[in-house]
Parts: sequence; structure tokens; C-alpha cells
Amino acid sequence: MHPILVAGQWRNAAAEGSFEAFDPTTGESLGDAYPVSGWEDCEQALAAADAAAAATRGMSGEVFGGFLEAYAQRLEDAAPAICQMAARETALPVSPRLADVEMPRTTDQLRQAAAAAKSGSWRRPEWDAERNIGSCFGPLGPVFVLGPNNFPLAFNPISGGDFASAIAAGNPVIAKSHPAHPGTTRLLAEQAAAAADESSLPAGFVQLLHGVSPQDGCRTVADPRTAALAFTGSRRGGLALKAAADAAGKPAYLEMSGANPVMLLPDALAERGEELIAEVAGSCLLAAGQFCTGPKLLGLLAGKGATDLIDALRADFAGRPPAVVLAESVVHGLGQAVSELVAAGAELLAGGQPVSEPGFRCPPTLLSASAEQVLANPEAFDVDLFGPATLTVVASDETQLLALAEKAPASLAASIYSAADGSEESLALELMKRLRLRAGRLINDGMPTGVAVSPAMNHGGPYPSTGHPGFSAVGMPVSIHRFAKLDCYDRVRPDRLPDCLRAAAGV
Amino acid sequence: MHPILVAGQWRNAAAEGSFEAFDPTTGESLGDAYPVSGWEDCEQALAAADAAAAATRGMSGEVFGGFLEAYAQRLEDAAPAICQMAARETALPVSPRLADVEMPRTTDQLRQAAAAAKSGSWRRPEWDAERNIGSCFGPLGPVFVLGPNNFPLAFNPISGGDFASAIAAGNPVIAKSHPAHPGTTRLLAEQAAAAADESSLPAGFVQLLHGVSPQDGCRTVADPRTAALAFTGSRRGGLALKAAADAAGKPAYLEMSGANPVMLLPDALAERGEELIAEVAGSCLLAAGQFCTGPKLLGLLAGKGATDLIDALRADFAGRPPAVVLAESVVHGLGQAVSELVAAGAELLAGGQPVSEPGFRCPPTLLSASAEQVLANPEAFDVDLFGPATLTVVASDETQLLALAEKAPASLAASIYSAADGSEESLALELMKRLRLRAGRLINDGMPTGVAVSPAMNHGGPYPSTGHPGFSAVGMPVSIHRFAKLDCYDRVRPDRLPDCLRAAAGV
Repeated sequence: MHPILVAGQWRNAAAEGSFEAFDPTTGESLGDAYPVSGWEDCEQALAAADAAAAATRGMSGEVFGGFLEAYAQRLEDAAPAICQMAARETALPVSPRLADVEMPRTTDQLRQAAAAAKSGSWRRPEWDAERNIGSCFGPLGPVFVLGPNNFPLAFNPISGGDFASAIAAGNPVIAKSHPAHPGTTRLLAEQAAAAADESSLPAGFVQLLHGVSPQDGCRTVADPRTAALAFTGSRRGGLALKAAADAAGKPAYLEMSGANPVMLLPDALAERGEELIAEVAGSCLLAAGQFCTGPKLLGLLAGKGATDLIDALRADFAGRPPAVVLAESVVHGLGQAVSELVAAGAELLAGGQPVSEPGFRCPPTLLSASAEQVLANPEAFDVDLFGPATLTVVASDETQLLALAEKAPASLAASIYSAADGSEESLALELMKRLRLRAGRLINDGMPTGVAVSPAMNHGGPYPSTGHPGFSAVGMPVSIHRFAKLDCYDRVRPDRLPDCLRAAAGV
Repeated sequence: MHPILVAGQWRNAAAEGSFEAFDPTTGESLGDAYPVSGWEDCEQALAAADAAAAATRGMSGEVFGGFLEAYAQRLEDAAPAICQMAARETALPVSPRLADVEMPRTTDQLRQAAAAAKSGSWRRPEWDAERNIGSCFGPLGPVFVLGPNNFPLAFNPISGGDFASAIAAGNPVIAKSHPAHPGTTRLLAEQAAAAADESSLPAGFVQLLHGVSPQDGCRTVADPRTAALAFTGSRRGGLALKAAADAAGKPAYLEMSGANPVMLLPDALAERGEELIAEVAGSCLLAAGQFCTGPKLLGLLAGKGATDLIDALRADFAGRPPAVVLAESVVHGLGQAVSELVAAGAELLAGGQPVSEPGFRCPPTLLSASAEQVLANPEAFDVDLFGPATLTVVASDETQLLALAEKAPASLAASIYSAADGSEESLALELMKRLRLRAGRLINDGMPTGVAVSPAMNHGGPYPSTGHPGFSAVGMPVSIHRFAKLDCYDRVRPDRLPDCLRAAAGV
């Protein structure tokens, strides 16, 4: 049984059980056993995180930035082994995905977080010289981080954006492995632990548990020593943890994805329908449809363009082999979601049936419904199509399309394709107004998959796509603000102020 | 029965009951009846707010700023009548409080909010030219605002900081009167309604209900048409509304005050003990101890300075007449809180007994306990002393004083008085580190009452002094961010961008 990382030591868990990772291509166990920790381990991790928070109070951002840089360098050095392990556990290809895209994105995020930690850009100092009052953001305390299955590196709880942004603000992290890739998480954590040691961070600043029961997870969130929760994953898991955080008055940052509606207007389809077929199909089926920004709802106006697009997508989807997905739970979850849509009246155009090949596979699945059906029962159509599946929705007129936008499921992103010549401007603007309320990021003439690590990014959105509409999970320094509290200093003696306020005050 | 303001009309409520305001100096009803609305009124207000949000989508900040300015001007013109009514309902003096301080603060807040709305400073545009991505804060939707009893103007739900900041971001407000001053709120709302008409804001942008049942309050918070909750008041009321907001995934900004600990170190007392007695007593008893930043816990190190301060405060408190408080609920609440402290082992040094004079009055009340007692049972000593009462806590040594700071109740503010010559620097710094986690605003050599309207202010703090540690209820533009969502525009056509991003992008 693999050890956990608690209080600076790799040690045996006080385990209540164990789990194994699987090779999604075969469905067979990869052999290694990982512990499901009992409360004793959580308690010790909390105590160590609390002590680490106390030991690092007031510490310079140079220390946290130095750690993040050292860690990024170590990940680059260890990348081949880590990417190989991630490929085994997730079936995502080493190339062109894990080694070429996701690992560089991960180290880039860590380095952007390091730069923010060192420069203090996230602290946003405000100085009121007349009144001798200053404020800035400061660290919040230990953050409990749970990551998703679909980005084993860039959203991993011990190397991804939540980790990087929590650490950049000077907060200890207790990470919990996703059960689909504990080996990858372990290899990452080994580098994190070594980098923390080299950077003289206190034991307990970076910790890893492999598994905890749902009850102990909620108890860890609610514990007074936990300052905030960061969760990326399914709505069911996220909402259970959010309830525990809410009851204890803790900020909970949850990223639970959504349908990410894409509206394709007729003149755009007339102009560049052929080109759009490839673009849409590629985005729908990218990484087997397992992006949290995947387009799960295509909104169309009835007509030749819509018919042609749907026919082409049906042929495209039907012509592809079943896709290997991340875990057995994806196969079950998608099967269930497709059944629910069919029960609600959607028509199955391609895929949708169980697959006989070994491993965890889903056929590319295309469904269709009318906007009338969806609008008559929006809750029934708000299902989580995580995996290679997309629902097309055809509106009979513009009014219906606008209503569809207004009632679209809460999402991280939404997109509008319209004629390049501006002939669909007024409809596009009306759609924008409505989609603005349903998604944190609006896109024009592009698909929602692909989330740039930019200070202008919002990887967030209305509830329940996330837990708070004012914060982004991606982008530096913006994502760091989730793990900060606002610290005000009122008539405080100049030599007691934090550096960023002394600089702002010119003392 | 006075009417409510719904959908731009003053109209009769579909009332489930009624209530009256009282003259706190006599305890007698002021005569006018105000309605407790049933769900039908809430439903109509929600429908009108929703329509107003839709009608103002994308509207320029000039409109909201213009309304706030016109409203501020109207309040100045109507100030004599409003302040007179507020004095009748709250027993706060017209001068030197309502007309000289609170009304100017209120109009200043409205004008600062207007300036932020017009300049768009609160939107914080970020532009990433390389990737063609921009983000900025945008309006959230209708905000349900409930204000406290203690600032009938500056924190009134229809004229105070929550109102001003919600409106500045372009959000409709549904305000609910505090039962202690419905007449004041009505007079304010009349000016707000007139200013909204003049500013061509849609009906339903500014609305007023006088009373709603707790159940209908929670249902209003949870309704899909409500975007956020702003509440200032007691912990019990706030937490009930927060639970409703949490379950529905709504941001809830609550300001529920706290003990606001003040640590007075021995050398500071030796240096300027006489001067400090007046400063401390004045702050404790300011407005009959009914500030949310009132110092309810004085932390002292055993010794002559502490003994002298406590003796002087006891004499001062005992020599003052009972203070008129805002409402009968304050008399009951404070009596209960004092009983709880005495039951926990605190000693009553002055006051603490019911008063025989008519009206709502409490005697200035001083209690004392040892740090040992408090640390042995911190929950029992974390009671809400809203009214003219303060607890002194004497630590036997520095270690105990540091522990007291570490376990201090979550607060909006905390202060440290130390020797001017720096002889107590190391203790002061250690106290600062600990109090930093317990209060949103740290003060040196000053009392916590007095909250400047500054962009550097944080009128906020850890749970449960507020609902989120990253936001301030006072200060522009900082308080506006509570009522904003992060809007990202990814490859959006330049002429579809909001103005602030077009400016940032230079298009």
C-alpha cells in the first residue's frame, strides 16, 4: 500500500480501506494499492497544515514563489515518468496531449503563480494616505483541494491551478488524489515534497491523502483549521462538500462544468458550414468529450444549415470508433445521462449504446431535440453529458432560440457563431445578452474547449457551474483571489505594515 | 397602513399583518402602521426586479450614477424631515449625529458610488491583446437588501452602503425596512423612487417592502430571480437567510459584527492611562454601544495599569445614567447576553440590572473575567454584547494574552495600544499576527468605532462576523465587487464588447 504525505513525511496511512487505479483501455487494475485514510490521517494533516500556516504567517512571497519555481523545474525533469504514468491511468496520449500540452501548461501555471507570489500582484494594495489606512489581500489559511479526473496534471490537486493559486497566496494545501489517477498524483507529490524541503517550507505546507470517505471529506472541510475548499468535478460530489463548507461558513470554490451552449446561426452555417462541421465535431469529441468546457448543447435555427450540420455530425460521430474514457464511472454516468435525455424526448442520432470492446469505452453519441421540447421541461434536459456526447437543439424561430439561450444550463462558457458580414448582428447581440447570464465566458466564432491561462480568463460561471460567479479557477493572478482575505490596516505603525503597503505608502 | 413600493408604484400591500415603530425614549408606539407583506407582494417585487434587470442589461454606468447623484441631492433637500423621523424612531440625536454625521456620510457614499458607476472603476477591465480575451466585472442581478437597526440612514437598505454598491453595479434592489425605523425608510424610499423616475430607470429597479415573514424572506432569497443577499444585523437572522442563500447557490454578504477586541498593553497604559480611559469609555458607550465595531472585549495584562483602567471604567460607567437604546429587543438581547456571561463566570462591575425608567434603556455595563476563564470556555464568552456593555479580560502573562488574541471572537476590527517608544514592539507584533486572523481591520493606538468610507477600508472579517472574508461592506469601489460577476469575452467581436473593454483594447 502506497504511503501518504503528512506533516512532511511519507508514511503509512491509518487506512480504512484501499483502492486501485485501472487501465482504461483494458479495464484491468494497474496493481498498486492506495489507502483510503480514516479520520486519524485527516486530523494529523489538519494539525500539520495549521502549524504550517502559523509558521509561514508574514513570510515573504519570495519563499512561496521560490517553491513553485523549484517545483516546476522538478516537474520538467521528471516529466517523462509522470506523463507515462498519467497515460497508463487515464489513457490520454503522452503525445500530443500529456507531454506536449498538459505538462507545459502545468509548469507554466506554476511559474505564473510563482511570479504573482514574488511580485505580490495578487495582493492589490490600496493606500489611503489622507486617512492612514491601507488594505491588501493576504493568505486565508489551509485549503483542502480535490481535483477532477480529466486533467491529471493541469488540474491535479497537487500541481494544478487550484494548488498553484492557493500556494501563491501563502496557504498550506491538503490535496486529495482523484481515484482515477493516484499514481500520477503520487509522482507529482514526490516532486512537490522535495521542492518544499529544498525551499525550507515547513512540514505540512504541502500534504497528500489518497482517499477519504465522503463523511471524512466533509468533516475535513468543516474543521476549524480548514480555511477554504477547492473542488473540481461532478456536481453531486461538489454540492455535498459545498453544503459542509456552507454550514461551517467557509468559502467553497467549486468548478462543476455545464452544457457550454454553442449557438450556430444560419448565415454562419451558409458561409462556412463545411469548415464548421470539422470544428464542431472536433470540439465535441476532444479528449472523448471530457473537457469541462465541452460543447454539450448546440443551438440551431431550423433550416437547411441546421439540417446539413446535424446530418454531417451524425455521419461523423457514427463513423468513429468508440472512445476510451477516463474511468468506468464515465461509462455509467454517460449511459445514465443519455437515457435521461431519451426519456425526456430526445432522439438518438448516433451512438448511445453500450460497447462490447474491453476497457472503458463510449461510442460518440449525438442526440437531438426541438427547442420546444427543451423549453417545456428545461430541468429534464439539464443533464451532465460528461463524455463523447452532444445534444443538438433546433429552434423553429428566433424567439425560441432566444428563449433557449435564456434558459440554457449554467455554464463555464457559451459561444455564438454568426455571419462574418454582420448580417446576423441584432440576433447575435440579443443572444449575447441572454448567454451573458448563463456563462462566465462568452466566445464568438470559436468553440468553448481551450481555456487560455490568461489574466483576463474567467474559468467560472453561474451556480451550479461553479460555487461563486465572481471568481475564476484559471488565470494568474485572478485565480489567487479565491484563497485570499482582505486585510485592512487602520492607523497601523508604518514598520508593522506588510511590505506591499509600506511600498504603497512610501515608507 | 402605509403602502409598499413595488414595480414603480406605491400601493397597498397584500398584508399578512402589520407592525408599528416605537419611540425608544417612552416605549410608546409612534402610531403609524406598516404592512407585513405576504408572498404575493414578494412575488410581484421579484417579477418587477427581474424585468428591471432585463431592461437595464448593458445600460451605461452613467444612468446608475446619475440616479445615485439625483438621489443624494434629494436626500440633502429632504434631510430635515428624514432626520427628524429617524430621531423619533431611534432616539439617536439629530445633532450631533443624524444631520451632522450620518446623513452626510450617506450622501457621500451615494456620490462615491455614483462616481464609481460613472467611471467604471469597479469593473476592473483586464485585456489580453495577444489572445484577444478580455474580462471585467458586470452586474449580477436583483439584490435583496436587509439593513440593521443601528444606522437608520448610512446602512439603511434603501440608502446605505449595500444599496449604493448594489445599484452602482447596475443591480435592481429589493429593500426590506428594519422594523425599528420603517418611517425613516419610507421617507428615504420616497426620494429614491422620485429620483429613479427622473433618471428613467425602469419600474422595479428600486423597491421597498416593509415587513416579510422569516419564511417569505428565505423564499425571496432562494428565488431564482434573486441574484444575491445583503444583510446587516444579528447573527441569528443573518445565518437563517445565509442558509437559504447557500442552499440555492447565491452569494450572501452578511455583516454580523463581533467583539472587536482591543488589547491595551501595560506601557501604553503607563504612558497615557488617563487619556486612554476617556478614549476607551467613549468608544464603548458611543451611541449606547450599538456600533457593529464597538469594543466589546478589552484585553489587558495583569498589573497596575490594568487595575487602574478597570477601576476608572467602572467609576465612569457607574456614574452615567442608563442609555436609551434602539429597540426593546436590544434591552432583552443585552440582558440575556450579560446573564450568559455571568453564568460563564464573568463578574459584573457596573450596570447589568434592568432599569425602571420608561422606554428602552440599558445601564452602562462593565464585566470582567480572567483570560484563564475565557480560554477555558471560549464559546461561552463569545456572546453578542449589542448595547452599552463591555467585557474586560485580564491575562496573567503574555502567553495568556497571545492565546486570548488567537481565540478572540471573529470580528470586524481589532486594536492594539502599545508604548509609543516601541518598548512593547515584539509583543505587539505577535498580537498582530494572531489578531490578523480574527478581524478584517487591524488598528493601532485607536478604537475600532469609526469606519472611514475609504477605498482602503475593510468593513468585513472572518466568519461569522461576516459571510465571506474577501469582501468589504464599506468603501468604494471595493464594496461594489460583492454584487458583481466576472464576465469574460473570448475572441468576441470588438463592437460587441462592453465599453470598458473596448477602451482597454483600444478599439
